[in-house]
Amino acid sequence: MVEMLDLGDRVSAVRYGVTYEGILMPSRREGYVVLKLDNGYNIGLKLSESKVALVGKGKETKPPVKPLKRRDGLPMVSILSTGGTIASKVDYRTGAVTSQFSAGEIIAAIPELEEIANYNSRVIYTILSENMRAEYWIALANAVAEEIRKGSQGVIITHGTDTMMYTAAALSFILKTPVPVILVGSQRSSDRPSSDASMNAICAVTVATSDIAEVVVVMHGTTSDDYCSIHRGTRVRKMHTSRRDAFWSINQPTIGRVDYLSRKIETNIPYCCRGKVELEVRDKMEPKCAIVKYSPGASPEVLDYYINAGYKGIVIEGTGLGHVASNWIDSIRKATEKDIPVIITSQCLRGRICDRVYDTGRYMLEAGAMEGGDMLPEVAMVKLMWVLANASSKEEVRMLMEAPLAGEISASTPITT
Amino acid sequence: MVEMLDLGDRVSAVRYGVTYEGILMPSRREGYVVLKLDNGYNIGLKLSESKVALVGKGKETKPPVKPLKRRDGLPMVSILSTGGTIASKVDYRTGAVTSQFSAGEIIAAIPELEEIANYNSRVIYTILSENMRAEYWIALANAVAEEIRKGSQGVIITHGTDTMMYTAAALSFILKTPVPVILVGSQRSSDRPSSDASMNAICAVTVATSDIAEVVVVMHGTTSDDYCSIHRGTRVRKMHTSRRDAFWSINQPTIGRVDYLSRKIETNIPYCCRGKVELEVRDKMEPKCAIVKYSPGASPEVLDYYINAGYKGIVIEGTGLGHVASNWIDSIRKATEKDIPVIITSQCLRGRICDRVYDTGRYMLEAGAMEGGDMLPEVAMVKLMWVLANASSKEEVRMLMEAPLAGEISASTPITT
Repeated sequence: MVEMLDLGDRVSAVRYGVTYEGILMPSRREGYVVLKLDNGYNIGLKLSESKVALVGKGKETKPPVKPLKRRDGLPMVSILSTGGTIASKVDYRTGAVTSQFSAGEIIAAIPELEEIANYNSRVIYTILSENMRAEYWIALANAVAEEIRKGSQGVIITHGTDTMMYTAAALSFILKTPVPVILVGSQRSSDRPSSDASMNAICAVTVATSDIAEVVVVMHGTTSDDYCSIHRGTRVRKMHTSRRDAFWSINQPTIGRVDYLSRKIETNIPYCCRGKVELEVRDKMEPKCAIVKYSPGASPEVLDYYINAGYKGIVIEGTGLGHVASNWIDSIRKATEKDIPVIITSQCLRGRICDRVYDTGRYMLEAGAMEGGDMLPEVAMVKLMWVLANASSKEEVRMLMEAPLAGEISASTPITT
Repeated sequence: MVEMLDLGDRVSAVRYGVTYEGILMPSRREGYVVLKLDNGYNIGLKLSESKVALVGKGKETKPPVKPLKRRDGLPMVSILSTGGTIASKVDYRTGAVTSQFSAGEIIAAIPELEEIANYNSRVIYTILSENMRAEYWIALANAVAEEIRKGSQGVIITHGTDTMMYTAAALSFILKTPVPVILVGSQRSSDRPSSDASMNAICAVTVATSDIAEVVVVMHGTTSDDYCSIHRGTRVRKMHTSRRDAFWSINQPTIGRVDYLSRKIETNIPYCCRGKVELEVRDKMEPKCAIVKYSPGASPEVLDYYINAGYKGIVIEGTGLGHVASNWIDSIRKATEKDIPVIITSQCLRGRICDRVYDTGRYMLEAGAMEGGDMLPEVAMVKLMWVLANASSKEEVRMLMEAPLAGEISASTPITT
């Protein structure tokens, strides 16, 4: 019955008296047909229970790309595209979402953007964000710097949400920026009615023309279309797989918020202001660093593996205040004796490491481990990659890891525990 | 100046005209003196700036252990002690907190407990919870079962908070229980005025005598002393290193709460009622399982390490909806071809895995990876340890991993994506 239908065709399916109409999608289950309904959701129906009929032959649709007009008096903002959901639409060949839009197409699809700024747009690369790695961070940081040198008053990076926090942290350490650098993405592809792409893009451009000269993430603040939160790049974490308000600032309030309708920005905490620093790019990263998550009964041989495989730095995601089992202490010492720094963070994510309260923590410190303060484990790893490539001695590595370089760690209070 | 003072002595220290009085603690920093103030906090003072004097010689103090009275008409509750902060006090030799109290001493220290129940108390072991592992879970589960068989109407386990969630998950899979089984701990040692030990213990006993016959965690619900939350053992996670309200239910509301003053329980969601199931202990666990946390640029050789080292099951903590870089796909296939199950979970913690939306996820599924639904990564690992030891075929492993066994995963809606 379905043989005469092509993927992408508009079809109707009747099951138990209910009629579903939508686009025919590939099905992963034998004997099922999958429709993409007009509300953006997919439904799977058992073929043996459903009557499927053609409504209209499908055709490839693409938003028309109109040439951008320059408007006098508006600031220049650069949009760098790296792929991700904000730049993606459903691929009807596979039913999956792939990265297909360019930044220029994003601007063309969201007319409101033209009221706020003029744009330079460049595709830096088109990858899904899970394929991001240090060399891409470096290329991206240099592309951002190039835009700033060319006079951009703010740079927006469209990015997949999966690894956005890692890229935001990397850019925070690599770049000193006199203008806003914003990572923005969306959790729902832009061909879905529930897409957050437009609002996030409009808020991102608003921040790009603001005074907040930091690397920040701008994403939905709630599940409503009311405001976007502005998160410091070293304090933000994706905390839900699919919600539009998945990004949270951890261990620090958000820098502020952008009201969607009024485009007004309110701030909560101090931030770096526009034009206060010279642009600087320190783009070396040591890629051979690892996050090791401790869990009960985990063998210290895991740590030995990283030591023997030539890793240059290790971040341990310990339990609670920053603990691993006592039988890991010797392997920690093995690492630090080879000048492989071991940074302790917590799988609790919130709160501060304190390895001076319990015996285990004290032994970990004696073995040379460093407390990661209130840094997120993922941020500690990105920072370690940067510090290892930029410090000239192991003392400097320790000093830099314990110091706030980009707002990633709060000044500790070492003499009051 | 400090030489004539002993650790544990009560001393005063004057700095810049301010006098601090407290117990002399060991100092980790050369040239500093550390006092434990009466509010429970430590302060470090530079010796060169401070004048330190003896107030009184220290002595070991221990709460008097009075024999427990049996009261007619009260239910019998067992308290099993495993160590942890609820059972610990400051060790003045090292300044650290070690596990020293027995369950009997806890009861003696919190007189209110005697109004609620009669108690059997046993020390199962005395370890800090970061040293917990599968063999302890098994011993503990059997000790719980023994108490239930002897007629206990509820079993309380005092446990360190660091790995409490792992133990709670393990007991949830090992035990089918006709009575409440409660894990309780404290975030501040019980000799500190801000300790949460008393309130948590009182609320735990209240739950032990209730109708909620599940493995649950009972801990402070807020930073105030108003109520404790009751968390399902397979849905709870420690989400702060030090706050008293560190435990949160993830992807599910709490089962309910216990009001501290009225000792009334309110529930939010359905739960298993007392006496509905027969006690059952299925105590086999496969310890050789690992959590592997993916981060950008991480080498697939990490996965190969676990495969080659003879691990029996792997939980991947991927990004977003459940992703790793494309270059990990081959190693996932290598694992599944050796019948090593690979379960995909998300470092977002919240939300559900869906590997059918993006190309990468679809390739991961084609390589044999299993979606972990809305299971917490840590719970997925504990479950995998249990399933591998209890299933008789790889098909059964898959079936059990995808099915809700102890409330750890929500029924998925496989035909609606």
